[in-house]
Amino acid sequence: MIISDYPIGVFDSGLGGLTVVKAIREQLPNESIIYLGDTARVPYGDKSRTTVQKYSFEIAEFLLGKKVKAIVVACNTATALALDKLEDYLSVPVMGVIHPGAKAAERKTEVKRIGVIGTTATIQSGTYEKQLKLINQRLSVVSQACPLLVPLAEDGWMKEKIVKDILTYYLDPLINEDIDTLILGCTHYPVFSSLVGDIVGADITLIDSPSEVAIALLDLLKENNLLTKKNYSGNLDCFVTDETSSFPLIAERFLGHPISNLCFTDISRN
Amino acid sequence: MIISDYPIGVFDSGLGGLTVVKAIREQLPNESIIYLGDTARVPYGDKSRTTVQKYSFEIAEFLLGKKVKAIVVACNTATALALDKLEDYLSVPVMGVIHPGAKAAERKTEVKRIGVIGTTATIQSGTYEKQLKLINQRLSVVSQACPLLVPLAEDGWMKEKIVKDILTYYLDPLINEDIDTLILGCTHYPVFSSLVGDIVGADITLIDSPSEVAIALLDLLKENNLLTKKNYSGNLDCFVTDETSSFPLIAERFLGHPISNLCFTDISRN
Repeated sequence: MIISDYPIGVFDSGLGGLTVVKAIREQLPNESIIYLGDTARVPYGDKSRTTVQKYSFEIAEFLLGKKVKAIVVACNTATALALDKLEDYLSVPVMGVIHPGAKAAERKTEVKRIGVIGTTATIQSGTYEKQLKLINQRLSVVSQACPLLVPLAEDGWMKEKIVKDILTYYLDPLINEDIDTLILGCTHYPVFSSLVGDIVGADITLIDSPSEVAIALLDLLKENNLLTKKNYSGNLDCFVTDETSSFPLIAERFLGHPISNLCFTDISRN
Repeated sequence: MIISDYPIGVFDSGLGGLTVVKAIREQLPNESIIYLGDTARVPYGDKSRTTVQKYSFEIAEFLLGKKVKAIVVACNTATALALDKLEDYLSVPVMGVIHPGAKAAERKTEVKRIGVIGTTATIQSGTYEKQLKLINQRLSVVSQACPLLVPLAEDGWMKEKIVKDILTYYLDPLINEDIDTLILGCTHYPVFSSLVGDIVGADITLIDSPSEVAIALLDLLKENNLLTKKNYSGNLDCFVTDETSSFPLIAERFLGHPISNLCFTDISRN
């Protein structure tokens, strides 16, 4: 097989990164994908830089063992805390989810005030703010950590009313800051986008990074001459580091359709 | 040093088990304690039996390396999914947090209807129900999984109003079941006990397992002739598998006073 027909590796702390897989499959239907969700150690959002870097390298090693041609870090926390190190050490092109979302937000904002929601680790890292300021120094950025949203998306099936209360609690301070653009800075958040839209109102544009990431991935593959030459649909192989009975249902929620092959793998003692 | 002066090992998925440490120190002030919080992999409550057993054995190995004379599994999920295996394989006495809480609840209930709240894994395991029925066949048990409460206690600092909304969402179905006793079946939950008391009202007795666990530990040490002979205060050494800047503050919340020595350790590649 020629290198450009090798699969793309995509990983996340859990199953939220499947929202990115969904967008990639829409944008690049002929590419094969190997996805790893680190469900044995989810969530990453309240863990330290050292630990998130360690986990990310273990996963990258697993994906390289599967001969991937490029890696997409489909997790904002891992992008914020580990992407630079992965770029330095890996032999294949690597991309994260923060830069594509930041670029899209900069294009959309008219008042030059952008809101960002994400995990505690992503927000504390200040990565979105740094990326946005690099793109355009005149931008103001208002951030809000939302520590409950990943557990809520991965596990906490609740009635719409309480989800709306939790979202409102996190979003109210941002709405009062006169932003016109809001980055959903976590790959788990697309499942909340319609509720978030209801709460913030039509005057605030939501930036949903998965579709931006898929476009940036197309560019990255082109630049590196790695676009597949196949003219038929690519495969999707999904691995998780822990398997519970509820996973197929949760995976379907993020991916938008039932998942056919979800395999268990233990990467921590590779 | 004689064996009875060795420390007691206590572990939890995160920092919630410090509520048990607090109760043990009140009950057995001369005992030394080595605590491990597996903060690199918290929470356990939505993980599988296989994974929770693997993590529990890695931690037990670490504690045995520190020469503990007994082990307290200060985590309801690990008790529900791994205690039987630990009892089979470890060379020191081991106890969990479920049996002491169940016994206390059976003593308190008059209507013989008991409610239990816990993580998804604890509730799905049915361990509380099995233990309660073993103690008294005539008991009815109503359970409710509360997947957001561990993240809320470990990380999600929120205003009282929203915490109360989340608790009410979980507790309402139990209140309607005419229970008179409610087991807080997770070592993280004591931080919510006053709010839970407000919601369920004075007619429902709360069973807060840490103090019951400390009493059961006293019995276990006596039976095994392992009570310390020291007549001065024991030490508390705390280890975590991941360290973030917010931990000392969160640890203080569970322990009731500032924590003096919190060390980082990597147990996953022992």
